[in-house]
Amino acid sequence: METISENTCFGGTQGVYSHSAKSTNCDMTFGLFLPDEAKYGPVPVLWYLSGLTCTHENAMTKAGAQGWAAEQGIALIFPDTSPRGDNVADDEAYDLGKGAGFYVNATEAPWADHYRMWDYITEDLPNLVFENFALDPERQAITGHSMGGHGALTIAMHFPDRFASVSAFSPICNPTDSDWGRKQLGAYLGSDEAKWTPHDASLLVREKGFDGPMLIDTGTDDQFGDLLKTEALAHAAAARRQQITLRMQPGYDHSYFFVSSFMEEHVSFHADALYSV
Amino acid sequence: METISENTCFGGTQGVYSHSAKSTNCDMTFGLFLPDEAKYGPVPVLWYLSGLTCTHENAMTKAGAQGWAAEQGIALIFPDTSPRGDNVADDEAYDLGKGAGFYVNATEAPWADHYRMWDYITEDLPNLVFENFALDPERQAITGHSMGGHGALTIAMHFPDRFASVSAFSPICNPTDSDWGRKQLGAYLGSDEAKWTPHDASLLVREKGFDGPMLIDTGTDDQFGDLLKTEALAHAAAARRQQITLRMQPGYDHSYFFVSSFMEEHVSFHADALYSV
Repeated sequence: METISENTCFGGTQGVYSHSAKSTNCDMTFGLFLPDEAKYGPVPVLWYLSGLTCTHENAMTKAGAQGWAAEQGIALIFPDTSPRGDNVADDEAYDLGKGAGFYVNATEAPWADHYRMWDYITEDLPNLVFENFALDPERQAITGHSMGGHGALTIAMHFPDRFASVSAFSPICNPTDSDWGRKQLGAYLGSDEAKWTPHDASLLVREKGFDGPMLIDTGTDDQFGDLLKTEALAHAAAARRQQITLRMQPGYDHSYFFVSSFMEEHVSFHADALYSV
Repeated sequence: METISENTCFGGTQGVYSHSAKSTNCDMTFGLFLPDEAKYGPVPVLWYLSGLTCTHENAMTKAGAQGWAAEQGIALIFPDTSPRGDNVADDEAYDLGKGAGFYVNATEAPWADHYRMWDYITEDLPNLVFENFALDPERQAITGHSMGGHGALTIAMHFPDRFASVSAFSPICNPTDSDWGRKQLGAYLGSDEAKWTPHDASLLVREKGFDGPMLIDTGTDDQFGDLLKTEALAHAAAARRQQITLRMQPGYDHSYFFVSSFMEEHVSFHADALYSV
């Protein structure tokens, strides 16, 4: 693991690190905010998964999360959204290939060699950060934005014992029934749609649910609202009697101006769950 | 209008009054909490519509609302849920007839003579209370529980200029598709289902929406969850991009123990809207 940078931030440290990842078979970069409390012992962790076109950097610089995390004594991890490098397959479209890993393990050419973001987020990166930093693996929570909200919700429901709570900002909710999803799941996983369903938050809520608190915020003026299919998740959660707070926030769009507006409440929401573990 | 009782309560007055109502063609009883501020001028009003089997009294004694309303300087009105009296038609079932007016104007025998709760709540009672008490008609909000949540949501969407905000505790959300609804709408309005749709909150959200904040709380352990059809409202609101906070509250049931647990947040929610009018 290589340290790219470390900056003092809200009394803690905002670091950027790179490492060679087995899952994605390439070097990966991530951001990690450690609150001051980490000097004295392992702290709880909030994973933040980013959306289409993002690297590890966008949320780290634009979401305004570190101040609230410092207040709560919680670490933040900002992974990248896809494998990187000259020998990694890509596509001209913004929503496929680099910056668009969709948090799945690709099985199809030309993606299968590197696009294994599911394993990266759920195995490689946890192994690395819990070995190298003062983080408490027994107290983890997860959130994300857009494609990252999709990742947070689907990963949380597959690892219910790992995450105390899950939230999402304007998540892609029903990718098996959206142009934000069908294209990518088809490319990465192939045409057999049965392989897509484990990566659809609305279907997962209906089938498995999540045994902990769930918070979803989406703007009423989200320019990608038709692609998110929030209504599918809303219906599934209410029908299952899933513990949830779902908010359609008036006037907000899909941007980080929206994410940052509600970051304090999301960090507080996760802190409540993390400190009652 | 006759004063049945007045008790000092949280520095204000909890009154119970009766009056002869033109709409329901019988004497009606209602509760009214006036905060101390009403001594000095008209105060904002929060309507609370009760559920099946209730009179004006249940919420007045069990919802724990007066303390929070006093803190916010807001009046509370607790209407009855049906016409009353020996010559008013009734049914042996708890969910039809007295205590089960469903906030509609009945057109069918034997109900049409008295069961005009829509007009009572939207015309008669407002005329009476704004004439007789220090209440500000320009600052009204509405909430309710179960059948009363259905009433609050449907009335708010039909009178969007009247209500700054709407909320509901475990509301009946989709009565045209539920045994809590089809039976009563059929009895009161007849078999032409086109006449039912103006009284279905999920259909109204889809068609009209509400131009203000909406807050819904329902328990994940609500014993009547299958009758409420919260999922229909959740889907409709998200699909329309209706401003909403919808919460499935873990472990709570349909009782006033649930209602009272979240009353503070509902009163605060309405106060935010009422004081920004």
